[in-house]
Amino acid sequence: MKRFFYTYSMLIFLVSCQLVAQTNSIKVTNTIELNRAIKNSKAGDHIVMANGIWKDIEIKFYGNGTKENPITLTAEEIGKVTMEGISNLKLGGSYLIVNGLYFKNGYTPSKNVIQFKIDNDLIANNCKVTQCVIEEFTQLDRDISDHWVEFWGRHNELSHCYLTGKSNFGPTLMVQLKGNEHVKNYHQIINNHFGPRPRKGGPHGETIQIGDSGTSMTPSHTFVANNLFERCNGEIEIISSKSNFNEFRNNVFFESEGSLVLRHGNYATIDGNIFIGNDNSDNIGGIRVINTGHWITNNYFYKIKGNEFRSALAVMNGIPKSPLNRYNQVTDVVVAYNSFIDCKSPWQFSVGSNVSQSDVLPATEIRSARPERVVIANNFIYNQIVDENPIVNYDKVDGVTFKNNIINNENKSEVKPEGLENKTVSIAKKGSNLFVSNENIHDIYAGFDFETVTKDLFGNSRTSKNNNIGAIVNPVKENAVLIDKTKYGTNWFLSNHVKTKSKTINVSTSEELISALEKANKNDVIALKNGVYQLKSSLVIKKQVSIISTKKNKKTELIFSSDNTAFEMLPKGNLILENVILTGNKTQNTFNTLDKNMSKAYNLFLDNVEIKNFKSVLEVSKGSFADTILVANSTIKNCERGFMLNKETNDGGDYNAEFVTITNTTFDNIQETVLDYYRGGYDESTIGGNLTLTNNTITNSGKAEKDSILIKNRGIVNVELSKNTFKNNSVKLIAILWGEKGQEPGENTILNSGKIEVVQNLELKLMY
Amino acid sequence: MKRFFYTYSMLIFLVSCQLVAQTNSIKVTNTIELNRAIKNSKAGDHIVMANGIWKDIEIKFYGNGTKENPITLTAEEIGKVTMEGISNLKLGGSYLIVNGLYFKNGYTPSKNVIQFKIDNDLIANNCKVTQCVIEEFTQLDRDISDHWVEFWGRHNELSHCYLTGKSNFGPTLMVQLKGNEHVKNYHQIINNHFGPRPRKGGPHGETIQIGDSGTSMTPSHTFVANNLFERCNGEIEIISSKSNFNEFRNNVFFESEGSLVLRHGNYATIDGNIFIGNDNSDNIGGIRVINTGHWITNNYFYKIKGNEFRSALAVMNGIPKSPLNRYNQVTDVVVAYNSFIDCKSPWQFSVGSNVSQSDVLPATEIRSARPERVVIANNFIYNQIVDENPIVNYDKVDGVTFKNNIINNENKSEVKPEGLENKTVSIAKKGSNLFVSNENIHDIYAGFDFETVTKDLFGNSRTSKNNNIGAIVNPVKENAVLIDKTKYGTNWFLSNHVKTKSKTINVSTSEELISALEKANKNDVIALKNGVYQLKSSLVIKKQVSIISTKKNKKTELIFSSDNTAFEMLPKGNLILENVILTGNKTQNTFNTLDKNMSKAYNLFLDNVEIKNFKSVLEVSKGSFADTILVANSTIKNCERGFMLNKETNDGGDYNAEFVTITNTTFDNIQETVLDYYRGGYDESTIGGNLTLTNNTITNSGKAEKDSILIKNRGIVNVELSKNTFKNNSVKLIAILWGEKGQEPGENTILNSGKIEVVQNLELKLMY
Repeated sequence: MKRFFYTYSMLIFLVSCQLVAQTNSIKVTNTIELNRAIKNSKAGDHIVMANGIWKDIEIKFYGNGTKENPITLTAEEIGKVTMEGISNLKLGGSYLIVNGLYFKNGYTPSKNVIQFKIDNDLIANNCKVTQCVIEEFTQLDRDISDHWVEFWGRHNELSHCYLTGKSNFGPTLMVQLKGNEHVKNYHQIINNHFGPRPRKGGPHGETIQIGDSGTSMTPSHTFVANNLFERCNGEIEIISSKSNFNEFRNNVFFESEGSLVLRHGNYATIDGNIFIGNDNSDNIGGIRVINTGHWITNNYFYKIKGNEFRSALAVMNGIPKSPLNRYNQVTDVVVAYNSFIDCKSPWQFSVGSNVSQSDVLPATEIRSARPERVVIANNFIYNQIVDENPIVNYDKVDGVTFKNNIINNENKSEVKPEGLENKTVSIAKKGSNLFVSNENIHDIYAGFDFETVTKDLFGNSRTSKNNNIGAIVNPVKENAVLIDKTKYGTNWFLSNHVKTKSKTINVSTSEELISALEKANKNDVIALKNGVYQLKSSLVIKKQVSIISTKKNKKTELIFSSDNTAFEMLPKGNLILENVILTGNKTQNTFNTLDKNMSKAYNLFLDNVEIKNFKSVLEVSKGSFADTILVANSTIKNCERGFMLNKETNDGGDYNAEFVTITNTTFDNIQETVLDYYRGGYDESTIGGNLTLTNNTITNSGKAEKDSILIKNRGIVNVELSKNTFKNNSVKLIAILWGEKGQEPGENTILNSGKIEVVQNLELKLMY
Repeated sequence: MKRFFYTYSMLIFLVSCQLVAQTNSIKVTNTIELNRAIKNSKAGDHIVMANGIWKDIEIKFYGNGTKENPITLTAEEIGKVTMEGISNLKLGGSYLIVNGLYFKNGYTPSKNVIQFKIDNDLIANNCKVTQCVIEEFTQLDRDISDHWVEFWGRHNELSHCYLTGKSNFGPTLMVQLKGNEHVKNYHQIINNHFGPRPRKGGPHGETIQIGDSGTSMTPSHTFVANNLFERCNGEIEIISSKSNFNEFRNNVFFESEGSLVLRHGNYATIDGNIFIGNDNSDNIGGIRVINTGHWITNNYFYKIKGNEFRSALAVMNGIPKSPLNRYNQVTDVVVAYNSFIDCKSPWQFSVGSNVSQSDVLPATEIRSARPERVVIANNFIYNQIVDENPIVNYDKVDGVTFKNNIINNENKSEVKPEGLENKTVSIAKKGSNLFVSNENIHDIYAGFDFETVTKDLFGNSRTSKNNNIGAIVNPVKENAVLIDKTKYGTNWFLSNHVKTKSKTINVSTSEELISALEKANKNDVIALKNGVYQLKSSLVIKKQVSIISTKKNKKTELIFSSDNTAFEMLPKGNLILENVILTGNKTQNTFNTLDKNMSKAYNLFLDNVEIKNFKSVLEVSKGSFADTILVANSTIKNCERGFMLNKETNDGGDYNAEFVTITNTTFDNIQETVLDYYRGGYDESTIGGNLTLTNNTITNSGKAEKDSILIKNRGIVNVELSKNTFKNNSVKLIAILWGEKGQEPGENTILNSGKIEVVQNLELKLMY
């Protein structure tokens, strides 16, 4: 496959060389030559950047080509021209093409990596960026905001590009609309591959955002089609549409933890998209609907198991007379001809209803306006395993008309519209994840303007003679595929790196351990020979590595004598510790992140570990983010504090870790708090972090805790606290749970340890 | 002229009869026949309503014509088929035409006189109402709300109609947008004559409203062109555009006390309209701008002397993150190629700025967001008499770009942009109210998308070789006229009734007086022979009539002995009293309105009148409305109360009188308040009423006034209180003035009479 791509790209290159030869080809090898070539460029020019690393380069590519003779800036050999270090690209003028540039190993010095304007007087129109890659070109600090691609002007295009690994603040791709020069833009965002975007831990991690609340009344007409969104997990909105008349067609959302959200703006078209979840995740969503006039047709939802904001189809409640940046009522929306296969409660209405929170929120935050004039028709719900509750309603459902929808099991939801009919349907698997009824169901509802839906998901005609409920009309062509990977991304970049095999490095001394940590490759395992290791400096973790005792029943002991942290977690540090004892001298922490520049997430997995005699177990910096912290079967004792994930206090919805799980673990004699895990700010759409504390035993702790709370989890949305034993902890409160988010104490055993309090509505700072 | 119209309409009728003969003509003479004809109608049918009065008829006209063969409902003889009593018309279906119906002497039993739908399942599309008249078809009670023409569906038309005299709640013409069936409607409102709409005294008196705040994000595309708005004085908004993409072209706003207001919604086109004010009125406005993306081009403003909300061009401040129904910021608006001739301070920016009211208003009411990205270019300001302050700013003007505008005198405003250049321009009067520079000024600013403005006010081309600043490009065609009356309204209805000459009726007894009042024609004068008239019942005033003493120096006395009011004011009652003495017996009021059904305004003019021994001078009912109450050179004494205009207490911005002027008048021994004139509700856009109290003497009054206030004017926006003498009035306060509205006590003489208090910000009930 790789060979094929290489050959193919060489072919392209040779072909383009021929083209270049016929027009005016200017090869440039350094910045001065490049700038001169740009300055002198005229329609038809091909400026060819020489192979190699272009470091710390800020390209301003301007000029005026024509439709027939654009000006092109291209790589000498595609994939071999890399922009590295502190670099970016701005385009201004008309009919410019950028082809085949590769951004990596760096970040932009400005607010954008690729920007479709040079300044307000030199805006790009009819310009195209294609076959480019931006890979982990992310700011060093999560809190620094930028966009990787920022659209301005009109009729610009991003096509066949691959973008992955943005972990800092800011949507990966942003369409700007402020100014008449940028409205009615008809930008094309087509055939791109948006590769994995890691969880960010808070808002502002969208993959695409089109406009903002201040331009939500603006016609945008941005066209987003045939893109693949693969594990775009940055935040709850994969795409945030915040302007009018945008079209989203034939995109694939693959295991992406979020939704296509019609956040502001109206009259979106969402047609022919595919949403693929899986059996295990309830973070993967579908389409979330706010505002008016949208048409949602021919979409295919497979194994979407999210709930509320992340349900396959989430229709929200609005705020009466909503402020510009909040939630308008949903009106005049059509949802027709969609298929929901093996989804869980795919239709959820009045999502976000929060009338019960009137005590803690101002009237301008209360979503009480139910959807009105919404038509749900000709949709198909099919479950291999019965889903008794296809509909979830958070308020009355009195503004929705259901017509001619079919489900293959009995609907036992509270809402049982006649227009959702239980019918036995025989179904066939036509391809991977692709299920279609064997026969067309012709009983179609012909609503207002429904005749404008003339095609199905695959582009086959819907006619009065041959039509079907759901996204697909029979006959389906032979070998139909839901996801045709050849459509997405570049023709040269291989996004799926081959995994290297892990090897085991045996060590028996401290020096060997330090050396092994330095040398280890990703995924390697360092096996400690049994004994005691004296360590005078920090162990630095900057890749995925395991440190284990060879014998499970006899733990190796690491004794730390320096004031510095025992383990220093760097970006991408992923530490697995098993069967070891970590002993401090009460002057240091067990784990620290860097104080700054935690540009990427780290992880921590502890199994059968004993930690004793430290200050804090974990101390983090404000901008740091752990995707997962998992502690199991361990013992933590004689420390001042436990896990301190409490430094992200901007009260803007951000937090320091996504998943924190502590289970089967004993805490004894922790002076202050055992865990402090904080998320601040009232924002209904940042739905993290996730704390699980089960089957632990916590004793003799909290003596010096100034707030007299043993476990602090303020603002964390998902908390499970059950089957723990709390004994002789001198605190008033074990924890405060947030009732409105469904938190409740499970079966815990509490002896002489204060109590678990449940507060229904938490008062948080308003973010908007 | 009348003859011409008659002949012309007969001609039309004859022609249409010929057409009818060729298609299927069905003459109907009663409701049963009409309904049968409608029920059986098919494409091409002409249903002809017989001449005469159709009383209490509710027509449901439905069917499906075709573009080539519409179904027509037409008058047998145009102008001779009248809908009277409790009547209305609803249309449903497609390609229906209603021609030549005349609504008068009644009102609608429903919410509309003409409605473009029958119900939600039978909506009109591609239907037309033409050559129809609705004349004073107004509800009996001002507080009952209706619309005369209500648009639903798509592609409907109101053309060549005449509508006048609506005095109750509700826009004359309303375009409804709730529901996908009604958006993107492309309705045509063309060539109509919107005749005088009287002042209403509060909001909801628009002539046209397109959508509402709840549909302000909706594309409407309503086309309003070539209409004449003549003295449409219903409220401060003549047209209230509350949706997107509406077009207003080549309309004439003639002495209409309000503005074309872009209240909600965006991207309006206002091109080639003419705004005619006059020397005396500062109530006549131009265009008021809110929201984003509007283009205001080729408009001609003549003698617009309004201020703030009513200025020729009022660009408002917005509310940051405004609630849906309040004020969005103005952004991305273009104002180009307009002419402002003899206007007063035509450009006003940040209108509505109210930061100073932060103490009494919530943050969601504070308009602090200044206009941004507004371009003002190629406009022409010309004043025959120097206007030193062409620009008024209520906040910083930092978001407006001025380019290539010309003014013929020095700009001494606080804001002096380079882009407004003082230049001597020779000008020619090319027609009535039509002034054009003698030579084109070619120095044109070519802003973004300016090339889309290809024509001038008269439709002449703007080219790179021949262009001009201002609305008009030379050469102007011979005999150009600003207002071509043949374009507007029907071809048969004469809206300007010939005024009848007033005659004088001499009377010498009470019986003769009562009889004369009954017999008098509009504008007649009843001359009282000197002496004393004993009256045992009320004098009923239901038309314009004068009652005067023949000898100015020797007043005739009318003595009232009944408990009933001396004068009963009916709708359209317009009483002029001169040189008379009115004497009560303390059991009755001098003037009363009806208790209800005050469907139209009344007026009261008193000159050299003595009023004594009454309860109240004037008592009104809630729904009543006086346009003008003028009292001059009179004496009022020994009454319990004076003028009680305080019954409209809905706190929705309404009030009981528009203009109240009392001058050179003496009040003595009024027990309670001299005047109670009330307007409730915080609404920045209901800018009434108007109270002038000058050169009066008020003595020995207020003894029994419970609030200890002599003159009550709560909520009245315009108050002048000067050169009065207050002596020995036992009150704490003479009056409370509203500082924020510029009210201040003039030079009054106050002796033993309390004081005049000025309150800067009045706390009023929020209306929204």
